[in-house]
Amino acid sequence: MGKTETWKENLTWLAALGQPPLCTTAGPMEAAAYEVEQFYRYAGRREPSFRFVCEKGAGESWRLVKKETGEIEIHGGESGILYGTYEALADLVCERPLPEGVQKPFFNLRMLESWDNPDGSIERGYAGRSLWFEDGSLAFEPDRIRQLGRMLASVGINVLCINNVNADAPARPLIGEALPEVAALASILRPYGVRLMLSIDFSSPVDLPDLDPASGQERPAPGSADPLDERVCRWWRNRADLVYQAVPDLAGFLVKADSEHRSGPATYGRTHAQGANMLARALAPHGGTVVWRAFVYNCMQDWRDTRTDRPCAAYDLYHPMDGEFAENVILQVKYGPFDFQVREPLSPLLLGMEKTNLALELQLTQEYTGHQKDLFAMPPMWQEIFDRLGNKKLHSIAGVSNLGRDANWTGHPFAALNLYAFGRYAWNPVRDPKDVIRQWIRLSAFLQESPEEEETLSELLLRSGRIYEKYTSPLGLGWMVNPGIHYGPSPWGYEFQAWGTYNRADRNAVGIDRTESGTGFLRQYPPEIAAQYRDPDTCPDEYLLFFHRLPYTFRMKDGKTLIQRIYDDHFEGYEEAQKMQRQLEKLHLPEGIRTETLERMERQIANAREWRDVINTFFHRLSGIPDAKGRRIFA
Amino acid sequence: MGKTETWKENLTWLAALGQPPLCTTAGPMEAAAYEVEQFYRYAGRREPSFRFVCEKGAGESWRLVKKETGEIEIHGGESGILYGTYEALADLVCERPLPEGVQKPFFNLRMLESWDNPDGSIERGYAGRSLWFEDGSLAFEPDRIRQLGRMLASVGINVLCINNVNADAPARPLIGEALPEVAALASILRPYGVRLMLSIDFSSPVDLPDLDPASGQERPAPGSADPLDERVCRWWRNRADLVYQAVPDLAGFLVKADSEHRSGPATYGRTHAQGANMLARALAPHGGTVVWRAFVYNCMQDWRDTRTDRPCAAYDLYHPMDGEFAENVILQVKYGPFDFQVREPLSPLLLGMEKTNLALELQLTQEYTGHQKDLFAMPPMWQEIFDRLGNKKLHSIAGVSNLGRDANWTGHPFAALNLYAFGRYAWNPVRDPKDVIRQWIRLSAFLQESPEEEETLSELLLRSGRIYEKYTSPLGLGWMVNPGIHYGPSPWGYEFQAWGTYNRADRNAVGIDRTESGTGFLRQYPPEIAAQYRDPDTCPDEYLLFFHRLPYTFRMKDGKTLIQRIYDDHFEGYEEAQKMQRQLEKLHLPEGIRTETLERMERQIANAREWRDVINTFFHRLSGIPDAKGRRIFA
Repeated sequence: MGKTETWKENLTWLAALGQPPLCTTAGPMEAAAYEVEQFYRYAGRREPSFRFVCEKGAGESWRLVKKETGEIEIHGGESGILYGTYEALADLVCERPLPEGVQKPFFNLRMLESWDNPDGSIERGYAGRSLWFEDGSLAFEPDRIRQLGRMLASVGINVLCINNVNADAPARPLIGEALPEVAALASILRPYGVRLMLSIDFSSPVDLPDLDPASGQERPAPGSADPLDERVCRWWRNRADLVYQAVPDLAGFLVKADSEHRSGPATYGRTHAQGANMLARALAPHGGTVVWRAFVYNCMQDWRDTRTDRPCAAYDLYHPMDGEFAENVILQVKYGPFDFQVREPLSPLLLGMEKTNLALELQLTQEYTGHQKDLFAMPPMWQEIFDRLGNKKLHSIAGVSNLGRDANWTGHPFAALNLYAFGRYAWNPVRDPKDVIRQWIRLSAFLQESPEEEETLSELLLRSGRIYEKYTSPLGLGWMVNPGIHYGPSPWGYEFQAWGTYNRADRNAVGIDRTESGTGFLRQYPPEIAAQYRDPDTCPDEYLLFFHRLPYTFRMKDGKTLIQRIYDDHFEGYEEAQKMQRQLEKLHLPEGIRTETLERMERQIANAREWRDVINTFFHRLSGIPDAKGRRIFA
Repeated sequence: MGKTETWKENLTWLAALGQPPLCTTAGPMEAAAYEVEQFYRYAGRREPSFRFVCEKGAGESWRLVKKETGEIEIHGGESGILYGTYEALADLVCERPLPEGVQKPFFNLRMLESWDNPDGSIERGYAGRSLWFEDGSLAFEPDRIRQLGRMLASVGINVLCINNVNADAPARPLIGEALPEVAALASILRPYGVRLMLSIDFSSPVDLPDLDPASGQERPAPGSADPLDERVCRWWRNRADLVYQAVPDLAGFLVKADSEHRSGPATYGRTHAQGANMLARALAPHGGTVVWRAFVYNCMQDWRDTRTDRPCAAYDLYHPMDGEFAENVILQVKYGPFDFQVREPLSPLLLGMEKTNLALELQLTQEYTGHQKDLFAMPPMWQEIFDRLGNKKLHSIAGVSNLGRDANWTGHPFAALNLYAFGRYAWNPVRDPKDVIRQWIRLSAFLQESPEEEETLSELLLRSGRIYEKYTSPLGLGWMVNPGIHYGPSPWGYEFQAWGTYNRADRNAVGIDRTESGTGFLRQYPPEIAAQYRDPDTCPDEYLLFFHRLPYTFRMKDGKTLIQRIYDDHFEGYEEAQKMQRQLEKLHLPEGIRTETLERMERQIANAREWRDVINTFFHRLSGIPDAKGRRIFA
């Protein structure tokens, strides 16, 4: 490989991957200087020259100024200069003009939320084991963490939550005896402007002793986690003090409470606002934030009960509490009212809270979107979410991480796009998905700057999510996955379970009526949106079976019957996956990337075929209606 | 409790449960003498007196002679005298006449097959952890093992296979470094006439060194498990010699090969006869037996493939090999052609092998029959199997154990009946299920000899299996269980999987045609049986959907439509479970037994309700046919 390639390998966004060894920097400015130095070294040139102008108090914002001499001035706060440097270098690589004016992040906290367990496994992780947990302890390679920090900074992510929100007793050392390791981890990431967040277990004061941060003395555990119990409040104050002694810039605590068998304020007859605000008071003196997950629903629903409708749960619970949350509480809401399905309408809670800090929660790890075997580029999906949010200003954004200890970080080489795009959208959600994909391809330098092949790949990635959607569960139904694993089809695998995820298909019709004549979920939306969704003739096709129960003979906007549309989508989805395969085979990808990508594509094709046939057979067995085009549907 | 109760607690078959501490006996005769001594002590009497007459060469057979003096003479081989003693004592307790003539066991090996894993877990175990494995090693309480031996001897079981047939590398120490522990276990059970068997991994010679039993020297592993490779033959000879040095009376090896992802002779292009006979030659000098499981089928079937039919697999594979197996090979065949479903027709392989030693394999542990939460007394099911076997003489019998480390051995207190009954049937399969159940109740002394309550309980247990069948998958369909766990309903949980277990229900019909016009499975039966099953009008109702695909409107023998029969069975099954609950509540069971039984019954009722509603809803969604009696079927 010539110098150009090596330089690119280094500068490449993803290929923060490794060489050359990173310097241990003291702060963002040094990190920025180091990046420029690498640029000079590997690009084999000294032009343009860079100048950093540090503006105290500018925080994360930055501004690029190209002087007539060719010199690039980067003005900004400390981390702003680092972000600006990455932008300037990326612009040089992509041969695009520098952005004008002051650049500020759209979202305050731009958090990567890890579901890493202390034993080193990652819940819903498809890229190997945890980068920082092993055998119950925090254990990491400093160089790898430094690379991680660099990678996150290069796309503007500024918070990393290191432990699974399903935080169990084993995670408790993180706010106690493991604090020195937490501090060591934080210190590696600090120069990259990345602050740690910790998931905490709301019930910890039930049985963990109360530690006095000044004297180090222990009081017995309060034996309760009631947020109105003064002993519990003191317990959390003490813990917060202790934690901030070790990590003074900790971003805060992430909480999953009263959710999926975990206890919470409701255990003590308290509201979530009371619970969150109690924690917020403990963190406030340190500038910390409570991120409170709104993923709360009845996970013990009786499938016979057709009045309870899981999508209604979060809004019903939280909307009446709007305005009750403290200033340093953020309510974190998944983009859809269910749980990271391939397609969901926007969660009405995101539109309905006026006086509460909200964070939008996305999922980068492909739990329901193909396990990083099947291709699923998320920018189009996210663009849709931002479009539907319209002018609604959200406070923060969180993405469930798709990273692991695999050499390429994300399992599928192309899954890295989703981390890249998440960072870009978190900085500024007004972007064309195609631009984001193109930039990532260029920066990743997979295709040696062949514009034609770059175009093929970006078109392919742009379509990939829709293709996956077409061969999986149809028209917003969701949940037709194999229970537990969430990969592969099982149309009724969740149908009689307690999770509230039903399609209620029968021989005549499918779907749940969520309008006012049905479960009433639609009422949670602003009137103009509700009006659009209420009428099956104006409801977007992709949400049709989310909002409506319809006969198989329902006539769609394109004139097809519902059943024919299901068949067509599934046959087409499979064919389009095959087309992706043929296109990928022709690309001149680097050998390792190529092999890995094509191997995974083989599995995707098998998966797509399985989905196509199972879903078509399922609906054919029920409806008895043959495919109008006479294609084979198995018995 | 008075003396009588204490004595009974001791004599009680199940209540080998514990007190008083057992003596360490040198052999079966001493064990027999000890039982008589206990009888005297706890019964508080010296009558009748017993006399043992040991007849060399009589083996396990025995004969009871009541002298005019009242003395009971027990004639027999060493273990025969022990079996005769248990019979005599049980007859005294049950106040029934002594059996006349020489008593010989019907089956040669009467094996309890444990699915215990080296880590201490038990595959499909519902009675706690393993009695002899923990953390990868053999580790046991000698007293508990002694009690186990006594319990097994008391019902005539003479072989215990101690490790899971899914034997993986962790089980390999059993034929190597763990042999001293195996020998210690064997020596505790030996006085009770119980010999050990070991499950082996056919592929062991691939990577385990070849140990010379004389010199103790190691040769490298052959790197193959090809049964025609002389190095592999020597490997197994050497291992057999080594194992028999440690346990001279080992019963032999149990083998699961070429089955469910395990390798076997087919890996090397060899037949199962070649594989089994190679092992048999290694064991023959020691009098050991190879038990070769016939549970071989394509577990990677494509559900789209309607020609492959899993029930055909074993017969297709083994029938052409009839006569090829060595004398000390036993082919072990599950009772049905699938896998321990609630109801299956008899495996045709059991009827079709004339020149091969066969073992009938039953399953005591309630994998598909209610997890020892739901009541399922197996004698009626087994009686049906023996009835269908008719005059066919089988060599041996095996039952997958339902035992574990729980204080009551079997989780559900009444599940112990199935171990008792297995032993009784293994000794002599010509028994009335009701008698077996009655005896067990009397011997277990749960009901203080209240004949009325004993009758209630025995009637209830007699019906329990049929009740479970009624509320689960209908009419021989099977497999409507939740995948993996095999408890609770999931009508299509296995429908699109690779296990070959399909119901192929659609809006018009359900079931698979296994007659000559369908998959042809029926051809494997003798003509007179095939003739009965071929015609849906003569096929027993309980096998109807096993052999036939029928429309929901098919008219059953009782005049009901098929769909109405499904609804009726499910409504009735639930009601009958409720009736069992009411009956149980009224019984004067010992307090601990009562509490445990009623707690489990609560769970059974919930399970029965779930099954009733899911199955009825499933078929109602498909068929659209309402219940003729207007009962509620959920949408």
